Amino acid sequence: MATTSDKATWIWYPGDYEIWLGNRMNNRRTERGAFFPPFWKADSHYVTVEFSKELDLACDEEIRIAVEGVFNLKLDGKLQFGMPDRFRLPAGRHQLCIKVWNQVTPPALRIDGPTVRTDETWRVTYEDKEWIDESGKASDTSATLYMQAGSWHFDDPAVRPSQYALPRKPQRAVAVRETEGARLYDFGRETFGYAVLEGLTGTGEVLLTYGESPEEALDTERCETLDRIRVAADAVADLATGRTEARTERYVLGNSKAFRYVRVACTGDLRETALSMEYEYAPVDYRGSFRSSDEELNRIWEVGAYTMHLTTREFFIDGIKRDRWVWSGDAVQSYLMNYYLFFDSPCVKRTTWLLRGKDPVTSHTNTIMDYTFFWFIGIHDYYLYTGDRAFLRQIYPRMRSMMEYVLGRTNADGMVEGMEGDWVFVDWADGYLDKRGELAIEQVLFCRSLETMARCAELTGEEADRTKYGALADALRAKLLPAFWDEERQALVHNRVGGVRSETVTRYANMFASFFGYLTPERQRQIKRSVLLNDAVLGITTPYMRFYELEALCALGEHEAVLREMKAYWGGMLAEGATSFWEKYNPDERGAQHLAMYGRPYGKSLCHAWGASPIYLLGKYYLGVRPLAPAYAEFEVRPVLGGLAWMEGTVPTPHGEIRVRMDRSEIRVRATEGAGWLRFASAGTPTASAGVVEALGGGDYRLRIAAGDEIVVRY
Amino acid sequence: MATTSDKATWIWYPGDYEIWLGNRMNNRRTERGAFFPPFWKADSHYVTVEFSKELDLACDEEIRIAVEGVFNLKLDGKLQFGMPDRFRLPAGRHQLCIKVWNQVTPPALRIDGPTVRTDETWRVTYEDKEWIDESGKASDTSATLYMQAGSWHFDDPAVRPSQYALPRKPQRAVAVRETEGARLYDFGRETFGYAVLEGLTGTGEVLLTYGESPEEALDTERCETLDRIRVAADAVADLATGRTEARTERYVLGNSKAFRYVRVACTGDLRETALSMEYEYAPVDYRGSFRSSDEELNRIWEVGAYTMHLTTREFFIDGIKRDRWVWSGDAVQSYLMNYYLFFDSPCVKRTTWLLRGKDPVTSHTNTIMDYTFFWFIGIHDYYLYTGDRAFLRQIYPRMRSMMEYVLGRTNADGMVEGMEGDWVFVDWADGYLDKRGELAIEQVLFCRSLETMARCAELTGEEADRTKYGALADALRAKLLPAFWDEERQALVHNRVGGVRSETVTRYANMFASFFGYLTPERQRQIKRSVLLNDAVLGITTPYMRFYELEALCALGEHEAVLREMKAYWGGMLAEGATSFWEKYNPDERGAQHLAMYGRPYGKSLCHAWGASPIYLLGKYYLGVRPLAPAYAEFEVRPVLGGLAWMEGTVPTPHGEIRVRMDRSEIRVRATEGAGWLRFASAGTPTASAGVVEALGGGDYRLRIAAGDEIVVRY
Repeated sequence: MATTSDKATWIWYPGDYEIWLGNRMNNRRTERGAFFPPFWKADSHYVTVEFSKELDLACDEEIRIAVEGVFNLKLDGKLQFGMPDRFRLPAGRHQLCIKVWNQVTPPALRIDGPTVRTDETWRVTYEDKEWIDESGKASDTSATLYMQAGSWHFDDPAVRPSQYALPRKPQRAVAVRETEGARLYDFGRETFGYAVLEGLTGTGEVLLTYGESPEEALDTERCETLDRIRVAADAVADLATGRTEARTERYVLGNSKAFRYVRVACTGDLRETALSMEYEYAPVDYRGSFRSSDEELNRIWEVGAYTMHLTTREFFIDGIKRDRWVWSGDAVQSYLMNYYLFFDSPCVKRTTWLLRGKDPVTSHTNTIMDYTFFWFIGIHDYYLYTGDRAFLRQIYPRMRSMMEYVLGRTNADGMVEGMEGDWVFVDWADGYLDKRGELAIEQVLFCRSLETMARCAELTGEEADRTKYGALADALRAKLLPAFWDEERQALVHNRVGGVRSETVTRYANMFASFFGYLTPERQRQIKRSVLLNDAVLGITTPYMRFYELEALCALGEHEAVLREMKAYWGGMLAEGATSFWEKYNPDERGAQHLAMYGRPYGKSLCHAWGASPIYLLGKYYLGVRPLAPAYAEFEVRPVLGGLAWMEGTVPTPHGEIRVRMDRSEIRVRATEGAGWLRFASAGTPTASAGVVEALGGGDYRLRIAAGDEIVVRY
Repeated sequence: MATTSDKATWIWYPGDYEIWLGNRMNNRRTERGAFFPPFWKADSHYVTVEFSKELDLACDEEIRIAVEGVFNLKLDGKLQFGMPDRFRLPAGRHQLCIKVWNQVTPPALRIDGPTVRTDETWRVTYEDKEWIDESGKASDTSATLYMQAGSWHFDDPAVRPSQYALPRKPQRAVAVRETEGARLYDFGRETFGYAVLEGLTGTGEVLLTYGESPEEALDTERCETLDRIRVAADAVADLATGRTEARTERYVLGNSKAFRYVRVACTGDLRETALSMEYEYAPVDYRGSFRSSDEELNRIWEVGAYTMHLTTREFFIDGIKRDRWVWSGDAVQSYLMNYYLFFDSPCVKRTTWLLRGKDPVTSHTNTIMDYTFFWFIGIHDYYLYTGDRAFLRQIYPRMRSMMEYVLGRTNADGMVEGMEGDWVFVDWADGYLDKRGELAIEQVLFCRSLETMARCAELTGEEADRTKYGALADALRAKLLPAFWDEERQALVHNRVGGVRSETVTRYANMFASFFGYLTPERQRQIKRSVLLNDAVLGITTPYMRFYELEALCALGEHEAVLREMKAYWGGMLAEGATSFWEKYNPDERGAQHLAMYGRPYGKSLCHAWGASPIYLLGKYYLGVRPLAPAYAEFEVRPVLGGLAWMEGTVPTPHGEIRVRMDRSEIRVRATEGAGWLRFASAGTPTASAGVVEALGGGDYRLRIAAGDEIVVRY
């Protein structure tokens, strides 16, 4: 059938552009002027891709063809001369095939005509298996290799996908001071972009040392990132990359950096007039919002949102200073925060493709066992929030091959243990974490991944897989408590080595098992006391695992305790001067101790996506908004003040939003799509501006919400 | 240990350069001005590769570093600033790692120092899995992912592997004639290269139509390849590719073509002064030779050698006019001919890498089931002729994944049948070939492939695999005769469908089973009568399968019959005016019938590698030279005149040659390496210039030959 999309868009083999762009992203990391690529397999696009479409045209029409690559065009199997940029399609039923080869950037196609336009309904393959016999008869037996095309937002024929770059805007330092013959520029808060040397006079070398803290920028021998530039009479050379260009009034550094402070030191008679920057950013909308009666909490939300904005780039990356890589455990939290802030679904998809890469699977995601499982869980969450089944159909084959890799590495008991080449991470912990044998948390995450496989197999019509993975999930789930539950300690223990159950309890498995529903309500209450609120159990000092810890407590109704924790922990960072949230924060540390990590004095990232979790917690557990069915077709709004006098905010949905305002006597809710339930507790009998309030017992009530109406409940 | 190679060479991940270069080769095919890439998966290089070497230096030394790609340098785990082109290595034991990213062309490295130089002893990986813990401690657990580097002949730092092109030299037409307002240029014989338009005057368009025959070049509507050029006052544009360049005295076409004839037709007042060409060729040496008392046979050898030279390019391709692709069934014959002509081992390796591509395996080699098996057999042969165990170690993992693909597609009886997406080819036959069910020839080739797996597993120390594949080979071999031998017909039948044995006999399985040793000598004699020399069995009309048919007959001692056949069949092509040998030849066809194939009047290739088999047959079965142990460490020379009065020739060995001269009373043999046996038949008692002639009974004799001595035997 002919396409009737409003506009033509560039299309490609799904995942290929994302993986290619991701390599560019991941390969921008530098360490003190050295190129620093990831240590896992980097994949590449299919170099030859065929795009095709069955057409049924009422009249003939001329199409315009734009291609990234060398190509041919076949109409009904007949090759046409050359590489035409226009082609007249005859009326009637026809098959149009365009085959593109591009070794350098992903093969991409845009066709624009009165009715024929490239979009995600086109099919693509990297292997058309079309051969002819001696008599010239053609065979094509590769139907199973066809996929629906991938695309993004490249609708303009002149803007080729391979030329894409994030937008930039100029920013100036807010302060500068002389320091031992150099200048220390302060940009006022954590930022990201390209340093700009303005008004250079004289000749010599410039050393730029970057810092998220002034200590780092000033410590030229130990700062994490730097640039060295040689300025001659008429040329400027970047000494790390060898890139040389003509000397101009304004020299823009070639690679971006993260910093608040930059120290600029020149040799010879060389001097800059000023150091400014080109701020580079993802053009996302802040569709989520949160305000409350607590100004510290509001500031936490704002700094969290800024942290998310800085780490949301072409992909969701971990942190902006050091790795700048896409890491699965970090990304799965960015996705969740994203659903409460930007609702940028394409960025979730891109990040998911990049993390997965291509077959064959040769290691866990990012080499980390737990990160493989978070990759599956991220797809589970993505479908729940977006309802995007087309994406599931595209990614499902790679979900299967990833899970088959995991299943090829299970032990005799069907559990996963770290094998050669596996990094069992769990968390950066201020204390010993045993990584040997079967870790309870890994089995819990594995089980959730198998459940995700079964669900996605069902959604994509893979019945045999649904049965297989469902049975594996059931079998593993049934083993969790017998293997790890310690009745005496009232908790899941940390691990089992050689069949011997450990006596150590850590928080990890307990909190995940709790909100994955693997524990009875009774056991959930037990672990709240015995683990989550028990200071004798090794504490968590990364926002990464605090994310889940606080989520588990919220799910158990501990909103007041969590609010106090948020103010203490994230408020603690603000009190230390944070302008974005950190990779790790231990309130017991002091001064420059906060900057160190990985054995390096400034190794820690001070702008780390996983630091922004209040964005998610406040949206999901205080405003209380979450989807119950994919894409918010059915949702729940269960606002809880948790000690606040009032709060208000917005949670984005795929095509709309849910607004919530609550104080101690009134709740206002308005959803622009879907339908759902407002859930709340009330001491007295509540009243509603519309609908019937239903008592659920125990002071709990609910009220049906339809899209469009503002509901006001007094309670 | 430090490298002590004489010269540094460019290195890369093994197979990666070969696959990348192969994509360029395979994507030069055009059909009437349309780009025509292969219909199977095109793979790509690993974009990030780490090269490393353990060093132990007596004194410090400076190395020069040349890289294709962005890179970093780590000495003992410490990253160095920038991308240095020189670096001083300190004395002592050190680990040097260079990590290169290159999306466009394969990451490649050349290091040159007093003792440290890149060569095949460097190790490479695409995934170093090196991570650090929170305290900065590094882990690296991917030892199994390291490989020895790949290389070729790129020893010059200035000649980058990605810039490689075959050499060219100018050639002029031998005749030109006017024909209906156009000129038909004749280059005297089949050739390959870039047409050159000389001395263009005026403006207009040029149509160049190429022909292996005059009929084809003159048939502008149906010739297989053409070029269209637009010549303006100051620019010339190739209308197929859009490439435009400044107008000059000599316009060289952008893509190569195969032709003997070119018709040049101009529009407007445009005229060329002449059409010449740049002949493009592989710079190989004719190390093998053959001369005899039969001038027609000598001409067959010469045209065969020229056919091989034309089809030996960056890779061994099928034919030069049409596909110009690397096809496995064609290549395995090129390899064998190559061992008797050029002994170009790197070209065998490159072709083997390209045919295999990368994991995952998604189809048979070139999509053809039989071609997968020929790929294995080609490696078997390569090791026998070259003894190159280093290559086996590099390729073995991909042999295993290829075989696992095959094993994943066997039926309940452990046999292969064509499944969806498989092309069961066998041969282009002038008659019906049943492709359904279990074809006997496919099982025979599969069995030989399993034997190859077992042997290569043994040679690479993969003991478990050796046992596994050996057992599978034994099991399949034991099933061949029960499944396919027809006692009444004294032959293997063609196939078995749904458990029912066919009543049709074809030559294919019988001839392979014969020279693979799957038949007893008694049964070999039976099939000679009942199949090979039985005109009632469907005849073979491709040189492709004639190769094996005549080899089977030679192996059965039918040298005189084969010599007659060679003269009739290849002599028949010469009589038709062939200047290179054809893809298919049916002596019953007449005139332009010889040009047609695939339903197209000029679809047939008149220069096809598989047409050159006399090169192999004459070297192996008439001069009688073959290796008995890898790399000719042990060999056999068993010359047979087969009706000739005399013959003489040379067969190349890895580092030398074996010369043979024989007439009706004397044999002269000289080998420059290895040792072996001269085998011959003699009516009387033979005498030798050295050594002891041993009688084997039945008029057969043998004599030991050592390297260096010329042995003269009178018989």
